[in-house]
Amino acid sequence: MTDINSASANSPLETLSWQGGRPGHVQMVEQTLLPTEFLELEVRTVDEMVDAIYRLAVRGAPAIGVAAAYGVLLGVQDLTGSTAQEVMASLKETCDRLAKSRPTAVNLFWALERMSACAESSAAASASGDEIIGALFEEAASIHSSDKDTCQRMGAHGAELIRDGARILTHCNAGSLATGGMGTALAPIYTAAQQGKRVSVYADETRPLLQGARLTAFELMRAGIETTLITDNTAGWVMREGRVDMVIVGSDRIARNGDVCNKIGTYSVAVLAREHGIPFFVVAPLSTFDMTIADGSRIPIEERPSEEVTNPFGRRIAPEDCKVYSPAFDVTPARLVSGIVTEVGILRNPTSYAIEAAFKDAGLEIPDLLDSGAVKGTSALR
Amino acid sequence: MTDINSASANSPLETLSWQGGRPGHVQMVEQTLLPTEFLELEVRTVDEMVDAIYRLAVRGAPAIGVAAAYGVLLGVQDLTGSTAQEVMASLKETCDRLAKSRPTAVNLFWALERMSACAESSAAASASGDEIIGALFEEAASIHSSDKDTCQRMGAHGAELIRDGARILTHCNAGSLATGGMGTALAPIYTAAQQGKRVSVYADETRPLLQGARLTAFELMRAGIETTLITDNTAGWVMREGRVDMVIVGSDRIARNGDVCNKIGTYSVAVLAREHGIPFFVVAPLSTFDMTIADGSRIPIEERPSEEVTNPFGRRIAPEDCKVYSPAFDVTPARLVSGIVTEVGILRNPTSYAIEAAFKDAGLEIPDLLDSGAVKGTSALR
Repeated sequence: MTDINSASANSPLETLSWQGGRPGHVQMVEQTLLPTEFLELEVRTVDEMVDAIYRLAVRGAPAIGVAAAYGVLLGVQDLTGSTAQEVMASLKETCDRLAKSRPTAVNLFWALERMSACAESSAAASASGDEIIGALFEEAASIHSSDKDTCQRMGAHGAELIRDGARILTHCNAGSLATGGMGTALAPIYTAAQQGKRVSVYADETRPLLQGARLTAFELMRAGIETTLITDNTAGWVMREGRVDMVIVGSDRIARNGDVCNKIGTYSVAVLAREHGIPFFVVAPLSTFDMTIADGSRIPIEERPSEEVTNPFGRRIAPEDCKVYSPAFDVTPARLVSGIVTEVGILRNPTSYAIEAAFKDAGLEIPDLLDSGAVKGTSALR
Repeated sequence: MTDINSASANSPLETLSWQGGRPGHVQMVEQTLLPTEFLELEVRTVDEMVDAIYRLAVRGAPAIGVAAAYGVLLGVQDLTGSTAQEVMASLKETCDRLAKSRPTAVNLFWALERMSACAESSAAASASGDEIIGALFEEAASIHSSDKDTCQRMGAHGAELIRDGARILTHCNAGSLATGGMGTALAPIYTAAQQGKRVSVYADETRPLLQGARLTAFELMRAGIETTLITDNTAGWVMREGRVDMVIVGSDRIARNGDVCNKIGTYSVAVLAREHGIPFFVVAPLSTFDMTIADGSRIPIEERPSEEVTNPFGRRIAPEDCKVYSPAFDVTPARLVSGIVTEVGILRNPTSYAIEAAFKDAGLEIPDLLDSGAVKGTSALR
C-alpha cells in the first residue's frame, strides 16, 4: 500500500498516497500552494484530513473519494485489540467528522458509505475488531487502486488516438491532481508519452479559476511534457494557425445521448475544433454518465459568484456593482464530440444506442429516464 | 473649444477635452486608475502631457493623436507677443518632447506632423507669432472635432443595424476611452441608446490585459447602458443560450479584401457567431484600412510578453518557466464579417471590390498593393 511520490519523465504526479503500511499516514500534494510552491503534506489524523479536504488541499471528485477512504483508516488504525463494537463506534464517529468536511462532494459520501458497508459486512460475519480494521485497509486500497486502474485503462484506450508528434489542446484540469490516478483527459497524454510518442500540449488558462494555468501546466511540466499556456480566447487562433492536431477534455457529467457537460469554455472549444476539422475527444469513466437524463438540456448549470470574475486575486478588475454572468459549466452537444474515451473503450460519434450498448456490455444496470421537465437544483454537478 | 465632461444617461464619457479657451488646459480621464477609481487630471504643461501619454493615462490611437495636438498648444499658448521665429522654435522643441512620450504610437506622430505643417504654412504666409498660435488652436480643434465627427458618423450608420431590445456582445475596448469621440465599436451602441432604443451589452473581459472588464464595462455602465461582464470562454455559451442578437467589435487594421485584424479572441467570437447565425459587425473608419495588403495573411501579429499572461496582477498564476504563446491580435477572414461600419456607410459582406469602390466614392487614393511575400516586422499594428 506504500508508494513513491517523486517526479520522473512522463510520469504523472501522484496527488495522494498511503505511506507506511499499518499504522501509516497519507502523503498529499498541498494544492492550495500550486503553482508557486510544491509541498507535500503528511496527514496523520482525522482532524488533519478534514482540514485538508475543507481547505481544498485535495480537490477533484475521485481524489476526494480516495482521501475520505484513507481518512477512515486514520480514525481506526490505532484501535488494535479493541472489540468489534468499539471499532464500529469509532468508524461511525470518524465518518461523521469526515462527512462535514465538504458536504457537497458526492464522491466523499460515496467513499464513506462504501467503507461503512465494508465494516458492517465484516461485523455481520462476526469479525473481530482487528479483522474489521484489516477489511477497511483492504477496502481503502481497493478504492484507490480501482480509481488508478480506471485512469490507466482510459489512458491506454485514449493513447491509441494520439500519433507521434501530436499537438493537443486541453481545457481546465482533468489530470492526476484531480484523481487517485493519472487523471481522465490527461491520462491518454501521459500514456502516449510513456509509450515514447512525442506529444505537446496547449493548456487553456481556464478563467475564472485558472485551473489550466495553475494545475494542468504544473502537472504536465513536472512530468516533462512540453506545455504552452494560452489565454482562453487564443484557442481559436492557434487552431487557425494549424498548431493543434486534436482536443482532449474531461467531463463532469455526460447525458445518455452523449451530450457532455464540462467546465465553461469547453463548448466554445468544441465549436472551434469542428470549424477547423480538428477531432474533439472527451475522456471520462462510465461513472460520469448520467443515464437518467435523455440529453444535455436537462443538466442544470451552476452559476458561480461574480467575485471570481471581478476580483480574481483579491484585486478588483471590473467596476463596482458590475453585473456578471458566470456559469461554471457548459454543455457540448454530442454531434460535436468525435469520441468519448472510457475505461471500456472508445465510443466514437456517441449516440444513445452506442452508450446503452456499452453499459450492457459492461454488465451495468441502465436506470429509467427521469420524467419530463427540467432537472431541478443548481448544484447537481460534481 | 471648451466642453463639459460629466456623466449623463446614454452619453459616452469624453476621455479628454480642452478647457478654458486660450490660455487653457486639458482635462483628461486618468485611465490607469480605472475601473476602481474615476479621476480627471488637469494637464497644464507639456511635461505633464508627456508624462500622461507615457504613463498610459491616455491610450488608444485616436485619443493619443488628440492629446498630442493639445500638448502642442500647452507649449505655445503663453507666447503672446512673441515673434513668428520664437513661436516656431518653441513649437519644434515642444514637438520633440512630445514625440518621445510614446515612440511607437503612429497617431502621435501623425498629429505632431499635422500641427507642424499648419504652423509652417502660416509662417510661410508671413503670419505673426500670435496668428500662428491662433492657427494651431484651430488645427487642434479640427483634429479633435474631426475624430469626434468620424465616431458620430460611424455611430449613426451602425445604429441602423441595432433594433430595439438588442443584446450585443463586444470584445476588448473600442469606445470613448480610446478615441476623441464616442469610439468605434461602441459608437453605434451609444447612438442607438440615445435614439431611445433599449440595448444591453455582454462585454468579454478580454485577457490578458482585461480591457473589456476594466474599460468597456466602465464606460458603458457610466453611460447607463446595461452591461454584463463575462469571461472570454463564456462567449460561445451565451450565444448557445440565445442571449446574443449581434456582435460588434472594432479593428486595428483591415486588409483590402476585408480581413479584419483585431484584439486576440475576436476570431473565435466571429466563428462562434457564425455557428449560431448571429451577425458579426466591425466598426472602423476608412483610415483603418490598409489598402497596400491584399489579405489578412500579410498582417504581422505582435507577440506580447509572457508575463502579461502568467503574472496578471503582479501575482504569478502559472508555474515558473511556463512557456506561453500570447499573440496580441488575430485576423478574422472577411467571409465571417457580416459588415464593416465606416464613416461613409456600411460595407455588407465586404469584398475588395466593394472596399475599393467605397474609397473611390470618398475621393481617397488607393495605393498599390505591396509586392509578394509576407510583411516583415512585428509591431506594425497600432
